[in-house]
Order: sequence, then C-alpha cells, then structure tokens
Amino acid sequence: MIGIDWGTTAFRAYRLAPGGTILDRRESEGGILSVPAGGFPAALSAAIGPWLAEGERLVLLCGMVGSRQGWVEAPYLPCPAGPAEIAGALTPLPFDGARCLLVPGLTTRDAGGVPDVMRGEETKLIGLLAEFGTAEAVACLPGTHAKWARLSGGRIAHFATQMTGEVRAVLLEHSILGRLAKDAPTDEAAFLRGVARAREPGGLLHHLFGTRGLGLMGELTAEATGSYLSGLLIGHEVTAALAEGVPDGPIHLAGSATLTRAYALAFGAFGLEHRLHDPDLALRGLMLIAETLQ
Amino acid sequence: MIGIDWGTTAFRAYRLAPGGTILDRRESEGGILSVPAGGFPAALSAAIGPWLAEGERLVLLCGMVGSRQGWVEAPYLPCPAGPAEIAGALTPLPFDGARCLLVPGLTTRDAGGVPDVMRGEETKLIGLLAEFGTAEAVACLPGTHAKWARLSGGRIAHFATQMTGEVRAVLLEHSILGRLAKDAPTDEAAFLRGVARAREPGGLLHHLFGTRGLGLMGELTAEATGSYLSGLLIGHEVTAALAEGVPDGPIHLAGSATLTRAYALAFGAFGLEHRLHDPDLALRGLMLIAETLQ
Repeated sequence: MIGIDWGTTAFRAYRLAPGGTILDRRESEGGILSVPAGGFPAALSAAIGPWLAEGERLVLLCGMVGSRQGWVEAPYLPCPAGPAEIAGALTPLPFDGARCLLVPGLTTRDAGGVPDVMRGEETKLIGLLAEFGTAEAVACLPGTHAKWARLSGGRIAHFATQMTGEVRAVLLEHSILGRLAKDAPTDEAAFLRGVARAREPGGLLHHLFGTRGLGLMGELTAEATGSYLSGLLIGHEVTAALAEGVPDGPIHLAGSATLTRAYALAFGAFGLEHRLHDPDLALRGLMLIAETLQ
Repeated sequence: MIGIDWGTTAFRAYRLAPGGTILDRRESEGGILSVPAGGFPAALSAAIGPWLAEGERLVLLCGMVGSRQGWVEAPYLPCPAGPAEIAGALTPLPFDGARCLLVPGLTTRDAGGVPDVMRGEETKLIGLLAEFGTAEAVACLPGTHAKWARLSGGRIAHFATQMTGEVRAVLLEHSILGRLAKDAPTDEAAFLRGVARAREPGGLLHHLFGTRGLGLMGELTAEATGSYLSGLLIGHEVTAALAEGVPDGPIHLAGSATLTRAYALAFGAFGLEHRLHDPDLALRGLMLIAETLQ
C-alpha cells in the first residue's frame, strides 16, 4: 500500500510492505497550498506514478488534503473514533490507476458544547493507540494548533485544540511584543521563567503585557523574549489542558524535535511525566487503518 | 494654563481658565508618530502659538510624548502615586516661550514581581480620583492595552494592564480567525455569547480555537465573529482583573463610546455594577496636577 500525509506545506508519501516496512518514500514541500485548482490528481501521479506502475493498488491519504482547501472536503467524523470507525468513513477520491481513499478529520464538542476539529492528527493518534491498546491515556501533539487527546478503549475519546503556536507567531510578528524580541536560539532558562509566570495569577492577557514590562525595565533581554513568550503560552496551555485532571500515566508526546523539547521542559516544571514518541506516527496510523480495511 | 494629551496617533490641547473652564481647544491627528525627529518644539509652537502669544505661561503635557519614541523620555514614577507625587516628578522640556512640563508615566509590580507601566492613563486616573477623593475604588480604562487600577487614599495604589485590544486586533488581522471574520457592526448577542464562553473551562488558547470550530460548523456567522471574539477576550480580561476580589462599589469606567458600551455589557453579564465617566478625564487630571504646582 501507499500511505500519504499531505499537509498544508508538506507532502510525505510512503510505500509500505504488508508488515509496515517502509520500502520507499517521497517527501517534498508540495503541500496543498502549492497545488493549483484541479491539480491534485496530476500532482499525485507525478509523486507516486512509479510505485503505481509497479503494481501498488491502495493509496490512503490523510491531512489537509481532505479540507475545504484540499482535493475533496472529507466530512468530519465525531468522537469517539478508532481505526474501525475511521476505516468506515473513508472518502473515495476520483483517481485513475489505484483505489484512493481519504481519511476523515475528527470533531468533538467540549463541556460548553463548542465544536473542535482536527485533520491529520487523528491518523497520528491512531498510530499512538497501537502503543497502548485500550488503556486510558492523554496525548499531546504540539504545533500551530496543539492537540490534546484523551484515548480510551482503543479509540480517540475526546480532544481539545490550543491555539498556542499560532498565537505566539502572530504576537511575535505583529504585536508590540515582537518589537522587543530578537531572533535567537532557545534560551531554556527564559522559557522556564515563562512557564513559571503562567502559573501566577493575573491571566494570560496580563502576562503577555508583562513581557513588555520586563523588556522595558531591562529585566528580559531581546534575545530571551521569544523563549519567555513560548514558555508563558505553553505554561498556560498545559494548565488549561489538564484543568480537568492530571493523567495517571505519562503524557504521550509527539512532534518536532524543537517543540517536544520545549513541552518536555514545561512538563518537568509542572512535575508531570511524559513519554516521547516517534514523530512518524502518521505512517503507522495509515497502516493500521489500511489493515482494518482489508 | 495649557493642558496637552499627546498620544501615539492623536494630539489634544486645551486652554484652561483657573477654574477649569475650557477657553479653547485644538485637536488633530498629529500624534507623536507623525512628528519628525527633533520636530516636537516646532509642532507644539504651530499648535498653541496663538495662546502663548496671548500670555499663557504654563504648558502641562501627558501621554506618549513622554516615551522613548516621544519628545523626551520621562522616567516612570512608582505607585502609589497621586497628584502631589506626580507634580513632584515633572520633567521640564526645552521650549522657548513657556514653562513646559511633562507628566511622568507610572510603574508598579504585580504579586509575581513583574513590572507594569502606563503613560497617559495616570493623568486620566488623577482626573477620576477627583470624583471620589480618598475612597477605595476600582477603575477600568479599556483600550489597546486596557488598564485596571486600584485607587485608594487619593492615589493610584496599583494597576494591571491587560493586552486585550491589541490581541484582538492582531488575531483578526493576521491569524486564521480573521479569515473567518467579516467586518460588521457590533452584534451584542454574539458579544455576550463570547463573554459567557470566557467563563467556561478550557482556557483562552482553547477558546480562541473554538471560535474557528464554531465558524467551520456554521454555528457562528462571519459577521458575528469579531463581536464574539471581543466578548471572549473581554470576558477573560474581567475574570482575570477581578480574580483578587470584586470591588465593593461600582467599577469606574472611562473610554471611547464603543469600548465602554462593550465593557458595560460584559460587566452586566458578570453581575458587576459600573459607573460611566466622561472620557475627557485627562483634561481634569492635568488641571489637578497643575493646581498642586501653583
């Protein structure tokens, strides 16, 4: 089979043997934003044509390729959902030469009834589920829109998105806080100072302005401001995500090296245990969904 | 005397009789950002030259004109501070033809020791103080950087800034939330829905993403998104600002008509009383500081 994680800015395709061994891979920056209208079949053919020519007949796709800006909009599937529910809700894609199926995104509602959505992360979480079966667990996938999921009974029971990464980016690029900040490598002491600040009273909107106060008074350097702001936002995220209760086991963490390092530091400051997972979870998730199919 | 509130984007000058009667006024969009380097004396002469020619000899200035980007940087004065402390910390400005004095900004530190600053609002708060003397009171001045102050003993005892207005602006202009929003008149029902949402668990970073969830699911219109986001942010602000305790009396509110209307709605939703004040408080504050001088 062929598994594809087609996101907003990246394309990753894997040719997989039945046991899950990666036979070949293609990775590019050809995310969905780089595909012209109507151009998805041609882009896919160009990327995986040789594998199809060699006889591959099943292509499973996940990620933003199933969004309104993608190839076809796949409806969101409600939680709880596991590999079987997802396999039962795949959207066939019009593509010659292979059976081409799109993984649905997931939706849930929080205690206030407000809807939440994910697209792409559901496949990573299915990959994670393989590691602890039906046990209760909490997973954290950091990113532009960080996802916190509760896994239970071999399914994704519930999740909540925290807009941490995007809020950090827009504040640094467009707010008064950015004017005080200089690009610099991560300063872990400043990051942890931000995490500690998040646990004080005052609220996020006050803490944000405090970043400026510290800068104006010479108590936070321009080079440390970005790290402090990350710590502040991630500290608020962790507090909010675990307000309902701290998990019995470790928090299952997967993502880029930079982000997982930052979250691991924050978890340590909160006295929380975590377990770091391979970032290539989407691949394993696609395999598991495909196995349910066959 | 001449009182001047010289902000980032606006210039307001008043010629005042000893009792506080406004004899004349000049208002323009000539904020400090429109003044070239070294151009402050000339800009001031152009605006108030005729009054000086008629014999005015004292000019008191407040606002961002005293910031690093302004005419001269006036040091911040620590809280608690009242008219006497402020009058004792005025910075003389090099200007021919009048005694020209700059009101200092204020600084304070919160429970976590993080510094906060204001510049311009201290003069408005002095104006407010005149209305209740030495009583304990809480004041809220909404804006790009909303200021919440505790007044006590005829002085500004403490204050905290909430970055509400700027966060709303950058999210609407630069984040994914803005892509879902259309400019539209204030929708009070959507605003109050946002205020109610702020009182639910989940945290601000989750609530922000929920704005997108509601939009994607067709449960919040593009026209209502800006109002909902205002309510959400102001709701979080009010919760945080009053976490230490709700004041015995009303919250004293002053600002633009649009913002004070929004805050009044939010206070109502929280069951909080408020008293609306004239937005022209800076003028009264300048008078009171000048009286302490003479």
